Amino acid sequence: FIHEKLEDWHSADVADLIEQLKPKLRLPFLKIMEGRLEPDVYSALDENVRDHLVDEMEPAEIAAFLNELELDDAVDFLENFEEEEQREVLNEIPPDDRAALQEGLSYGEDSAGRLMQRNLIAVPEYWNIGQTIDYMRDTEDLPDEFYEIFVVDPRHHPIGTVPLNRAMRSKRDVLVRDIMDTEQKLIPVDMDQEDVAYLFQQYRLASAAVVNDDGALIGVITVDDIVDVISEEAEEDILRLGGVSEDDLFGSVYSTTRARFLWLFVNLLTAIAASVAISFFDATMEAIIALAVLMPIVASMGGNAGTQTLTVAVRALATKELTAANVLRILRKEAMVAFLNGCVFAVLIGGIAWAWFADPEIGAIIALAMIVNILVAGIAGMVVPVTLDKMNIDPAIASSVFVTTVTDIVGFVAFLGLATLVLI
Amino acid sequence: FIHEKLEDWHSADVADLIEQLKPKLRLPFLKIMEGRLEPDVYSALDENVRDHLVDEMEPAEIAAFLNELELDDAVDFLENFEEEEQREVLNEIPPDDRAALQEGLSYGEDSAGRLMQRNLIAVPEYWNIGQTIDYMRDTEDLPDEFYEIFVVDPRHHPIGTVPLNRAMRSKRDVLVRDIMDTEQKLIPVDMDQEDVAYLFQQYRLASAAVVNDDGALIGVITVDDIVDVISEEAEEDILRLGGVSEDDLFGSVYSTTRARFLWLFVNLLTAIAASVAISFFDATMEAIIALAVLMPIVASMGGNAGTQTLTVAVRALATKELTAANVLRILRKEAMVAFLNGCVFAVLIGGIAWAWFADPEIGAIIALAMIVNILVAGIAGMVVPVTLDKMNIDPAIASSVFVTTVTDIVGFVAFLGLATLVLI
Ligand SMILES: [Mg+2]
Ligand SMILES: [Mg+2]
Ligand SMILES: [Mg+2]
Ligand SMILES: [Mg+2]
Ligand SMILES: [Mg+2]
Ligand SMILES: [Mg+2]
Ligand SMILES: [Mg+2]
Ligand SMILES: [Mg+2]
Ligand SMILES: [Mg+2]
Ligand SMILES: [Mg+2]
Ligand SMILES: [Mg+2]
Ligand SMILES: [Mg+2]
Ligand SMILES: [Mg+2]
Repeated sequence: FIHEKLEDWHSADVADLIEQLKPKLRLPFLKIMEGRLEPDVYSALDENVRDHLVDEMEPAEIAAFLNELELDDAVDFLENFEEEEQREVLNEIPPDDRAALQEGLSYGEDSAGRLMQRNLIAVPEYWNIGQTIDYMRDTEDLPDEFYEIFVVDPRHHPIGTVPLNRAMRSKRDVLVRDIMDTEQKLIPVDMDQEDVAYLFQQYRLASAAVVNDDGALIGVITVDDIVDVISEEAEEDILRLGGVSEDDLFGSVYSTTRARFLWLFVNLLTAIAASVAISFFDATMEAIIALAVLMPIVASMGGNAGTQTLTVAVRALATKELTAANVLRILRKEAMVAFLNGCVFAVLIGGIAWAWFADPEIGAIIALAMIVNILVAGIAGMVVPVTLDKMNIDPAIASSVFVTTVTDIVGFVAFLGLATLVLI
Repeated sequence: FIHEKLEDWHSADVADLIEQLKPKLRLPFLKIMEGRLEPDVYSALDENVRDHLVDEMEPAEIAAFLNELELDDAVDFLENFEEEEQREVLNEIPPDDRAALQEGLSYGEDSAGRLMQRNLIAVPEYWNIGQTIDYMRDTEDLPDEFYEIFVVDPRHHPIGTVPLNRAMRSKRDVLVRDIMDTEQKLIPVDMDQEDVAYLFQQYRLASAAVVNDDGALIGVITVDDIVDVISEEAEEDILRLGGVSEDDLFGSVYSTTRARFLWLFVNLLTAIAASVAISFFDATMEAIIALAVLMPIVASMGGNAGTQTLTVAVRALATKELTAANVLRILRKEAMVAFLNGCVFAVLIGGIAWAWFADPEIGAIIALAMIVNILVAGIAGMVVPVTLDKMNIDPAIASSVFVTTVTDIVGFVAFLGLATLVLI
């Protein structure tokens, strides 16, 4: 009964349904559906859920699935397996496909080689459209989607592309040479997927040729695969900025706890550093307890201002809008913005503190500390991610811990230090 | 000289070059390049930069550009103009195109209507491939890229699609009816672009038909436009989570300062609320100044733990992985994770505080406060975004201010309150 209903569903929706099930019910569900689930369902599953289910399957079963998937999806499926499991599964696969899969797995993770499809239409430049169409009709093993015909020279180097719609609108006797686009972006097989996605976005590509070290055409990447890369990479940045190392929504309690621990531990160290800074001023606080009451405000405003700037910087680095050519100009702008907002908030908090504790000196001190800390926050929010990026450390991961450590410590020290100088 | 070099460049790279120039040099540069820049350069420019340059152009100049752009890009260009400017420009445009543009602008911002292309190939089901190809050859005004032929019934309702590659591989006498895919996702013209992007990702679409209220085919959205939507929407979430309302990298100092102010102001209010909470315990802190030194640690760890959870929740809401069906299960998991990490960090910080101030009671108090605050952080980090989402408030904008307010106040009150109970 349930099979029939689900047969009309799209495999991505079936995958979502499985994800929504309680973990205990997922395996029995698969048993009930046995053999009736499309392999695409597995491709669409969240990795955490999939890994868990695949553990229960026999290598032969997995191999049967893989045979029905497109190469890039099959590689995507296999890459998470441990090496031994990979070998077991690969042994169950016919030699041709096995070789293709092994080649796919031989490219670096997140490289163009992993994204590409090896089936494509490549024709010599002296062919005409009629020959090309006949060749396409005779070729069995074409990918589900493709948008372009590649034109290659005798050494199989790509020299042009003919969009399918242009080919269709041309007469049979037109030479591909005469209607091909010769400007094309070639993608080296070892290019990182983030850079591949950048090329697709920047040049609005529908598909692009992948070439090996010798410049020969070995595959094609289509924009539908790039859609996933773009959201994966954006997700990575969102999560890393939030202090989460990977998507753990469907992870187990234990693995999630462990993954979150590291970030919290680093933050514990920085929080302790801030406390040590505060402890130098314990005598000052003991004398004027209002300082202890007010001090979190300066630190917290600096943290928020720094986070604003570093967020803009991390994003602009990812989209390559922030470059060596404009970093100084934009740093100057961020410093100006920080200074202006620092002044505005200095007046606000200065007035509030003065009124609250009926002490104009406390108002003046917190106002000055506020300007200093927001200005430092703006500068650090730009300098830290740019420096990390230069050092090839992902600015999305590490920027916020550095920036907030700076703004915490500067916030506390500026405020309590000024108070010690002026009031004690 | 410079013209010749730039003529070989892709318009997106020229746009990047203009963005990298100092603002003062951008207009002179355009003057030098006069008439030699492709309209696509303007489409590729950052909005802040473009608005600034377009201000200096005559309506007739702008109209000339727009005529060369594809409809969706032209609408994208015009939508940022003030109404009066829009009218001026539209008056310079031939009536046909003007009507098309006005219709494009009539759809809600960020709706499918704004994304779609009106030029498409739609054929009746009784046509064969030969007729379809001849029709395509005769049609002048086709979009640059398209991947599918739409099959429509006599009322112009879409009933199927034929991928171009399948059409090309079929003989001329095959009926489109016999090779069309009948499963297709139809997109209502007023659907939000975020939901459109979700459909494209979920079902790996290359293009999709847009229908009006009566179900008639009125346009097509292709995946290349979705690539932009996905990165725009992800950028929006990244920036909002960082407390930035929009991409202001190329904005002026004044506009950036003003845009950042609001978020900082809201955070000032919450920081003051936290200070008020602290002030209730001023006598306790005066008696034991170690409490003032340690109190930021509890608040900061809660803030970080809460941010981790809310980041995962905001992202999972955006990808529709977090739903009514699993929210309780995932809330329970987050609470468990928070409790476990709370216990670990309680032991760590309890030990450190005990050693630092040679006082086991202070260690015990901070340990207990840590467990409470990290647990509250985990729960609030899930409940706040889910509740905001239910109330149709973007969880990316508002979650962090609520969650960190909760973790600040709970952190200070739990720590200082326990200390007051136990030590005073
Ligand atoms: Mg899914
Ligand atoms: Mg992969
Ligand atoms: Mg694919
Ligand atoms: Mg990456
Ligand atoms: Mg990245
Ligand atoms: Mg996910
Ligand atoms: Mg650009
Ligand atoms: Mg738009
Ligand atoms: Mg286009
Ligand atoms: Mg378009
Ligand atoms: Mg959103
Ligand atoms: Mg949106
Ligand atoms: Mg931008």
